[in-house]
Amino acid sequence: MDNPDQYRPLTPAELGSRLSTVPAIAGRIGADPARWNVREVGDGNLNLVFIVEGPEGTVIVKQALPYVRLVGDSWPLPLYRAFYENHALVRQAERDPGAVPAVYHFDETQALIVMEFLSPHKILRRKLIDGERVADLGAFLGRFCARTAFRGSELSMKSADKKKDVGLFSGNVEIPAITEALVFTDPYYSAEMNHHTDGLDPVVAGLRGDAKLKARVQRLLMKFASNTETMVHGDLHSGSIMSTDSESKVIDPEFVQYGPMGFDLGMLVANFLMAYFSQPAHRAPTELAGYQDWILSVIDDVLTGFDTEFRHLWATERTGMLYPAALFEDQGQSSEEACLALLADIRADALGFCGIEMHRRTLSLAHNADFEDIQDAALKSRLEARNLAMGAELILMSEALGSAEKLLDLARRYNAKDIL
Amino acid sequence: MDNPDQYRPLTPAELGSRLSTVPAIAGRIGADPARWNVREVGDGNLNLVFIVEGPEGTVIVKQALPYVRLVGDSWPLPLYRAFYENHALVRQAERDPGAVPAVYHFDETQALIVMEFLSPHKILRRKLIDGERVADLGAFLGRFCARTAFRGSELSMKSADKKKDVGLFSGNVEIPAITEALVFTDPYYSAEMNHHTDGLDPVVAGLRGDAKLKARVQRLLMKFASNTETMVHGDLHSGSIMSTDSESKVIDPEFVQYGPMGFDLGMLVANFLMAYFSQPAHRAPTELAGYQDWILSVIDDVLTGFDTEFRHLWATERTGMLYPAALFEDQGQSSEEACLALLADIRADALGFCGIEMHRRTLSLAHNADFEDIQDAALKSRLEARNLAMGAELILMSEALGSAEKLLDLARRYNAKDIL
Repeated sequence: MDNPDQYRPLTPAELGSRLSTVPAIAGRIGADPARWNVREVGDGNLNLVFIVEGPEGTVIVKQALPYVRLVGDSWPLPLYRAFYENHALVRQAERDPGAVPAVYHFDETQALIVMEFLSPHKILRRKLIDGERVADLGAFLGRFCARTAFRGSELSMKSADKKKDVGLFSGNVEIPAITEALVFTDPYYSAEMNHHTDGLDPVVAGLRGDAKLKARVQRLLMKFASNTETMVHGDLHSGSIMSTDSESKVIDPEFVQYGPMGFDLGMLVANFLMAYFSQPAHRAPTELAGYQDWILSVIDDVLTGFDTEFRHLWATERTGMLYPAALFEDQGQSSEEACLALLADIRADALGFCGIEMHRRTLSLAHNADFEDIQDAALKSRLEARNLAMGAELILMSEALGSAEKLLDLARRYNAKDIL
Repeated sequence: MDNPDQYRPLTPAELGSRLSTVPAIAGRIGADPARWNVREVGDGNLNLVFIVEGPEGTVIVKQALPYVRLVGDSWPLPLYRAFYENHALVRQAERDPGAVPAVYHFDETQALIVMEFLSPHKILRRKLIDGERVADLGAFLGRFCARTAFRGSELSMKSADKKKDVGLFSGNVEIPAITEALVFTDPYYSAEMNHHTDGLDPVVAGLRGDAKLKARVQRLLMKFASNTETMVHGDLHSGSIMSTDSESKVIDPEFVQYGPMGFDLGMLVANFLMAYFSQPAHRAPTELAGYQDWILSVIDDVLTGFDTEFRHLWATERTGMLYPAALFEDQGQSSEEACLALLADIRADALGFCGIEMHRRTLSLAHNADFEDIQDAALKSRLEARNLAMGAELILMSEALGSAEKLLDLARRYNAKDIL
């Protein structure tokens, strides 16, 4: 018999009988589970995801699994991450209304979230591989990063509230540990779960032989692991974004944690750069330059959008204890230079994180479809080598690459360069 | 009648009847409270401190007060800080054995810690005003800062343990809030509780008019408030150190929190610099130069001792997830440059915190006896002006003042300079 106090993974066949009494579902799609159409669509590694379609509407049911799917049940993962994901979605919705799917219901025991079904949205990574454009994409994402970074920090929040929240999230240990290992450490030595494309060995050896590069990566790991500036999404790549041709939403914040303000921004830009470098394998020659230019324009919009929104919030919502008006505006002094200096620090951190993400997606356990979908191994390694080389330059030179223009120039240069 | 479940401040008359059944006391000093001699000796603002002398020994009983004494009961302070102080003392004793008083007993309800009585130790600040020397002082303090910084971080600790501890300490909100306001913010505008010596107005106006300086101070506040690199003492000044002529102990970690590795180091150096700048008011001309040189040698020893011990622990105890041997030594590469780069970052942070502490002790609520004991107001302001000016240079130039020698030269230059 069912014990409702005990976690049990859902199956499509059982879902109706187990969830038909949840008002948030029944009220939205219709109360008779016999008329529900249930499909399991999870392509992630950590969760079951069901589309539940009823006569009156459709919802998503997402349930955490107690292990990493990709490697079977040998890698256990705590169910409590659904608890943090729910908290993250609620906070993100407050900080950037409309940017994330609405949560209808949360069941802590079942590690289960019922949320808004996004349609006709498609995972952004797939759209980028398919050469589709999304209007307003970069501006939306830059704004999302700025709003969540600023409004989740002590620039905006009361310190007591923010510190209480840090305490709440400090229980989340295993999930950050995945990022700490897979993103920051594994790429730089021959870790067990690593794999990379044949032909990249000389480039990989170069990275692993560069003690200065690894020292800078570890310094950024230290910031990631012990800097609670704001609540970050924690896994903001193009697979965590769903878009139509004109609207985007950010999903899947189960890697949420307190972290550095530049973290999400850096991960995001890295994933656009990987989309950019992989394009020669996905586009016809006639479309290539135009689409690559569009991707670069998205990166430009992300960075510019972040700065613009951050400066706007700085001017209008600086209600926390940091950089108080008492020290600046109330004394007839501008705080604009202070804001720009902070933005420069955030940008430098972000570009460092960006370079690391570019490395780990080519060398560590979890790779990107942008490159993985490339059948021609020689072409794949040639494009990945560009990605790796630019990543290294970002890590080593992050403070010197302040302007978006410098970053885009660098991308263009590596895109024209044969590393191998 | 007494309700043992309810907090009530001790009085010397009541202490015997209330504590005679505590084995940790009775077993150490004798079980008959009629033969105890109890003196209240607290000169702090936040606690009752009793010396309890019995026929067989002596202990210290420290009890938190629910308000700040200095300003009466108008400023309530949570009693839970005794809970954190106890945790801090236990961790510090593990990380640097013998460096802090031994804890014999902790009573959470009564916010009360029974601990080792230090004799013939004297508060170090008083010794510095009195011109006394302490052998091995700087080396001991540098080692203490390095050991607590390193062994309390993810350079050494398992991440799960460290993150759990961050969660435990995140409940401590009001105490860090005092530092955040009094140290980082109040000095830089006309905050209500501020006071400063007549004659300093032009220097103070200069500091408060310097938007770049204030921006750098707020950036360091942001690090202090949201960087959990290690467990810091939080209030490591010369009033939190007790010394004989050859032995020192660190006391009073009730401002403990997770914070930046350079914080304690910077606060500590600031207090030696204030001792240094105040000496012309306390020493006979024949002794002045010699004693000031000794104080500078202590600062040198603190900084050198920190680096030496940190590098030693780096080489021998790097068991945490940060900078793992897998990335360096196991690949036949030295991690020494990585360690030096991290030490440079810690030093830069420390010098920034140092400058801020020099400011707040002259401008904010809580001043130092080093300057406050000076009767001659003109001399006092002249010496304080040097202290303020050097503090500003430290804040503005912290990255450029890497070597101890540069710092000591700067101190000598300001010591010979008339600012007013």
